[in-house]
Amino acid sequence: MYLGRINATGGDGPEPRILVSRAPGGDWTDVRKAQRLRLERSGATAAAARRISAATVPGSMSEALAGGDAFVDAAQLALTDQDPDATVTPERLIAALDPSGYRDFMVFEQHFSFGYRWQDKPVPNVLYEFPISYFGNPLSFIGPDDEAPWPHYSDRLDYELELGIVIGRPGSNLTPEQAGRHVFGLTILNDFSARDIQGREMAGNLGPSKGKHFACGAGPIIATIDEIPAEGLRMVARVNGETWCDASSSEMIWSIEEIVAWASQGESLTPGMLLGTGTCNGGSTLEIDRTLKPGDVIELEIDRLGVLRNTLAQPASGWWPEPRIPTPS
Amino acid sequence: MYLGRINATGGDGPEPRILVSRAPGGDWTDVRKAQRLRLERSGATAAAARRISAATVPGSMSEALAGGDAFVDAAQLALTDQDPDATVTPERLIAALDPSGYRDFMVFEQHFSFGYRWQDKPVPNVLYEFPISYFGNPLSFIGPDDEAPWPHYSDRLDYELELGIVIGRPGSNLTPEQAGRHVFGLTILNDFSARDIQGREMAGNLGPSKGKHFACGAGPIIATIDEIPAEGLRMVARVNGETWCDASSSEMIWSIEEIVAWASQGESLTPGMLLGTGTCNGGSTLEIDRTLKPGDVIELEIDRLGVLRNTLAQPASGWWPEPRIPTPS
Repeated sequence: MYLGRINATGGDGPEPRILVSRAPGGDWTDVRKAQRLRLERSGATAAAARRISAATVPGSMSEALAGGDAFVDAAQLALTDQDPDATVTPERLIAALDPSGYRDFMVFEQHFSFGYRWQDKPVPNVLYEFPISYFGNPLSFIGPDDEAPWPHYSDRLDYELELGIVIGRPGSNLTPEQAGRHVFGLTILNDFSARDIQGREMAGNLGPSKGKHFACGAGPIIATIDEIPAEGLRMVARVNGETWCDASSSEMIWSIEEIVAWASQGESLTPGMLLGTGTCNGGSTLEIDRTLKPGDVIELEIDRLGVLRNTLAQPASGWWPEPRIPTPS
Repeated sequence: MYLGRINATGGDGPEPRILVSRAPGGDWTDVRKAQRLRLERSGATAAAARRISAATVPGSMSEALAGGDAFVDAAQLALTDQDPDATVTPERLIAALDPSGYRDFMVFEQHFSFGYRWQDKPVPNVLYEFPISYFGNPLSFIGPDDEAPWPHYSDRLDYELELGIVIGRPGSNLTPEQAGRHVFGLTILNDFSARDIQGREMAGNLGPSKGKHFACGAGPIIATIDEIPAEGLRMVARVNGETWCDASSSEMIWSIEEIVAWASQGESLTPGMLLGTGTCNGGSTLEIDRTLKPGDVIELEIDRLGVLRNTLAQPASGWWPEPRIPTPS
């Protein structure tokens, strides 16, 4: 199945609602409403049906996935029921996922080796020893057609075309053989990057932080892992309608299962956590020596996952610290 | 005021509850219970008093802080009331904070310059240009007297003695002048580190991830910022009762306000977010060339913040990936 979210306007302002469909393009069914109507048919009072469906199908995708089979069953039954009273025709989807955590890996060899050549450095051995990663900001996620902020501390914004792995079940210290059943589905991920400050931060061997934390795009939908093979997906980036990247998910040097298993070593995966594969080969402007400007429209497209479209905002303003003088040694 | 948490056993298992005190050592008042009793005295039914106090004073410190003045007022009134029916004598405190996010900086010059000398590298200029940081794992926090896990992928665990800054109010793009009122309080932070894998990860310029994400200690209490000056705090680390570090918070090269302001540039601070200062000078085993072993008891002590004590567990077991062969260029 395929999942998306919309904003519905209630008495206390916009409230996200989870939709489900049999196909990447819709038709959409409102999962909470479908469950509420089913509960009423099975004898629940209107108030109890409302209470149970709100608890089982919250607006947060991470909170919903945390319910395990309770949520997944509700979504599958919504598809089975095809209750016409629960179908919706959304004008606009919002971010499919509000991740409970976000970790980005670097598993496309051509991209990371280029990144090091770009910085005139040898590729570190560790990139071939295990899948390395950093934690990004789960609070900076934007959805399809949202404007991507341009932070004041950067003159060089970039997109990064990635496959996003959505975790469905908690787990830790998994083997790759066990890891598959902890994956809920896949989505498109745009790990927006501020290259100038990212380079400075990486010289300090921490993060990157400001180079990454200002924005991340995800969506427009999540495809459950039974609908979509992680291998062989065509990954395309377009800027203002022109194709700048045309790659394949087959070029990863670590499998989805190995990425998830390594992510779980010594720490916990949580439902709704998003793991990025890292930029696909050719999936940023670095490799093609192009630059972006405010107003540019970036479209990322992956087979069966739709198109994630964002426009770059005008640069913001902000504060910059006063440098310190090193203590003479 | 000073805040802590305990686990109370309810019908559905242990449930955290927030306590408040006028002094770092207690006497403790249960904030939710104090508010419930006050609501009842002011005319609320028992059921409504229970509902309102549960919403205003949840067990999660981050969710409580997200309530803004609603929670802070409840805590202050609990101190004013001194209702004997709401006082508690806890056997054991749990982690004072379940952070909504965790970001660690590196603002103690002697520690970070030593770290680079230890790796035989020059100190990067960026460390003096702005406060650099990485995101840690907010889900790996342990509390006072909890055992710290020893991950299978490391032979060299370490502690890091840090001051933890607890964010109270949301905000972004703050100046240092504005940042102060977004700080709720301070706590002790132990940023446990796995030095061997940390070094390998930092060679890849991402993270560190596995070198840090397995555990973080915080607590035992939070002191609100009006109770405690960030400057001039004595910071002591003891291992198995022997003092291994005796430093001062005055040695930071960026102020609390500058750290918070920079953290907020281009992204959002959330209530309950924890910002670490980075290791104080001499605040890990690196500088003193000592090593830790399973069973070691680590005590971190900071003026007015109590003692954070954790014992290192026995090493765990787990999966390790098969290295890849670089593609010939």
